Amino acid sequence: MDMLPIIKELSQKTPSKILLVVLDGVGGLPQTPGGPTELAAAHTPNLDALAQKSALGLLTPVYPGMAPGSGPGHLSLFGYDPFKYLVGRGALSAIGIGAEFKDGDVAVRGNFATLDAAGLVKDRRAGRPSDAENRRVVDRLKAAIQELEGVQVSFYTESEHRFVVILRGEGLSEQVSDTDPQKTGVPPLQAEPKTASDESQRTARVLNRLSERIREVLADEPQINGALFRGISERPRFPLLSEVYHLTPACIASYPMYKGLASLVGMEVLQVEGVEDAPEGKVKALQENWARYDFFYLHFKKTDSTGEDGNFEEKVHKIELFDQLLPELLALKPDVLAITGDHSTPSVLKAHSWHPVPLLLHGPYLRNDAARRFTEDEAAKGSLGHLRGVELMPLLLAHAGKLQKYGA
Amino acid sequence: MDMLPIIKELSQKTPSKILLVVLDGVGGLPQTPGGPTELAAAHTPNLDALAQKSALGLLTPVYPGMAPGSGPGHLSLFGYDPFKYLVGRGALSAIGIGAEFKDGDVAVRGNFATLDAAGLVKDRRAGRPSDAENRRVVDRLKAAIQELEGVQVSFYTESEHRFVVILRGEGLSEQVSDTDPQKTGVPPLQAEPKTASDESQRTARVLNRLSERIREVLADEPQINGALFRGISERPRFPLLSEVYHLTPACIASYPMYKGLASLVGMEVLQVEGVEDAPEGKVKALQENWARYDFFYLHFKKTDSTGEDGNFEEKVHKIELFDQLLPELLALKPDVLAITGDHSTPSVLKAHSWHPVPLLLHGPYLRNDAARRFTEDEAAKGSLGHLRGVELMPLLLAHAGKLQKYGA
Repeated sequence: MDMLPIIKELSQKTPSKILLVVLDGVGGLPQTPGGPTELAAAHTPNLDALAQKSALGLLTPVYPGMAPGSGPGHLSLFGYDPFKYLVGRGALSAIGIGAEFKDGDVAVRGNFATLDAAGLVKDRRAGRPSDAENRRVVDRLKAAIQELEGVQVSFYTESEHRFVVILRGEGLSEQVSDTDPQKTGVPPLQAEPKTASDESQRTARVLNRLSERIREVLADEPQINGALFRGISERPRFPLLSEVYHLTPACIASYPMYKGLASLVGMEVLQVEGVEDAPEGKVKALQENWARYDFFYLHFKKTDSTGEDGNFEEKVHKIELFDQLLPELLALKPDVLAITGDHSTPSVLKAHSWHPVPLLLHGPYLRNDAARRFTEDEAAKGSLGHLRGVELMPLLLAHAGKLQKYGA
Repeated sequence: MDMLPIIKELSQKTPSKILLVVLDGVGGLPQTPGGPTELAAAHTPNLDALAQKSALGLLTPVYPGMAPGSGPGHLSLFGYDPFKYLVGRGALSAIGIGAEFKDGDVAVRGNFATLDAAGLVKDRRAGRPSDAENRRVVDRLKAAIQELEGVQVSFYTESEHRFVVILRGEGLSEQVSDTDPQKTGVPPLQAEPKTASDESQRTARVLNRLSERIREVLADEPQINGALFRGISERPRFPLLSEVYHLTPACIASYPMYKGLASLVGMEVLQVEGVEDAPEGKVKALQENWARYDFFYLHFKKTDSTGEDGNFEEKVHKIELFDQLLPELLALKPDVLAITGDHSTPSVLKAHSWHPVPLLLHGPYLRNDAARRFTEDEAAKGSLGHLRGVELMPLLLAHAGKLQKYGA
């Protein structure tokens, strides 16, 4: 059930400030049965002290057993039902690489492919080229194709065989089928309009013409000589945090995916100084903008990346680095502070997982709590119990005095 | 929300094997406040040892406060929303007694009734006859009525005043109203078609003719001289486990109800040697078929029957008997093993109850867990938290490596 319409009716503007810290993929697993998780292994004196005066619980970001991607994981934390508020693959890729992607544009996820002399798909991933090879080919396409039938065409490298096309022009639609046949030995599919509208017919025509042009331009390439299109999608139009929660929200993140997801729900994306995860730049951005917003989404990426790398020790280290920053966050005296993850990324799995993440909630109106540390095991004892990702925002709003009584 | 379409997209075939053990009605209550439940009173060294290297939690099979019947309890465990995937009363009775009940058939739950000289209902249960008396009357009906208007008619004893009719023929429909008026002093209702289709009109006509024929055949009976029909239902067509989860599933159960429910979701029902609950026959069937399937539903009934009898000691004993079988199950080395119930049947209540059941999950990727035994109290401390019945299957699939990431 979509709770946003109900929450919208109940939420109210107040001066209180909420800080939501997302440690990407922070949940983990023991390396051996009975051993500590990454959080349990980390030396975190500041988090420990905070946990002892906070309420903890476990959060299943999306659904039991489901390892969420970044899209559903984050949308859930922002209160959006991840089974209702869907971001198409093309849109998510466009957002993830920071492509310029506006309302009305259509984003397409492309796979470079190898076609044989008869035009049949020989390799759906063109031998998994390097990113550099991908960039070389994308540069050729950029130089050769800027416009088709009055539609502006932009190419972006994603990674390996993956690239993104943004179509911009009047009268485009996402109601168009994929051209990826999902198997080899057959020709690429024609993009077909899914509706009788002019927009979907026009978009299908442009994409079919684009397939042809890409083959012409890349005809002399030995391996990357074709493209398959998937997940044709417009930029989603979601309710905004300002409308639903009456918040003035800001995003502090370094990676395009998270800035893009935040902008989809109407957060202002703040400038962050520094390279990569830039933790100090993020704290500085938070401090400098503290007076101007009443909701901050503060994202740290490296707890996930190190988990994906299977590097237990390094993930522990990234957790410890966050612990060292924590006093600066507390010094701002947020009325409500939540620390959690968008999903687990256990080093032993080297991937996102379905395990719940710990949630720490600091603010007024807390019950006593048996959890002594911000770890999975301790959070399981916490007074917040076991929540779903979408349930987090109403809880934060309530503790911040921003959610009125439901019903008389 | 029905999650099956989403889970279908995410699930994948792998060689891993899942064993789901259902101890029917295993959850219980203390006999006196502070006392042990049946599970806590049982001496279960094997379950105890397993619990200490497993993850535990509590499972509310259907909904808080709702004591589930066998149908919704089991369908939930198989991942089917019990409020969406409904089995009509006639179909459930037909399945429960092991009647031959195929696609296209219509099953009808009948109540033997006493009618007065004016044809008004005098007793809706005909004085609750014995099962033997029921069988005697059913035999008279079988001898007298085999066919009506080209429809094959089969009678089965259920229990006391309850019997089942299976109609088989072309063009039948469940869109027909009950004939049970739900009160005395009025005549039985006419079966009415619920739609204008030929099928529902024909089925209503056949049922009304059947009411008349039953009264003719039983005209000389002092007590059982009429029948009331309820829950007219076709065999439900549910998505199959093979389609939804990409499993090759088998059922090992002794009682018709559980074999029938398993077959509704597409499990192959394996032969079990032995009488009644036949625990050894079940283990043998599991061992002999272990290589051929990747999902096994293994059902034990007596934990429920003894609870329904109000026999605390005997339920404890049935739990202990299962404990003795456990090493043979573990010897098969299932990748994922879950032990739970379809509902609680506390001996003190002598009935199904709404209390959550303990869930034990053994497999890879588990967190540390404070629960030391497979009991209600210990499960409440477990790392799996508190789940709903329908959430079990995605969790089992995830731990077995059969569920892909949701969203990019």
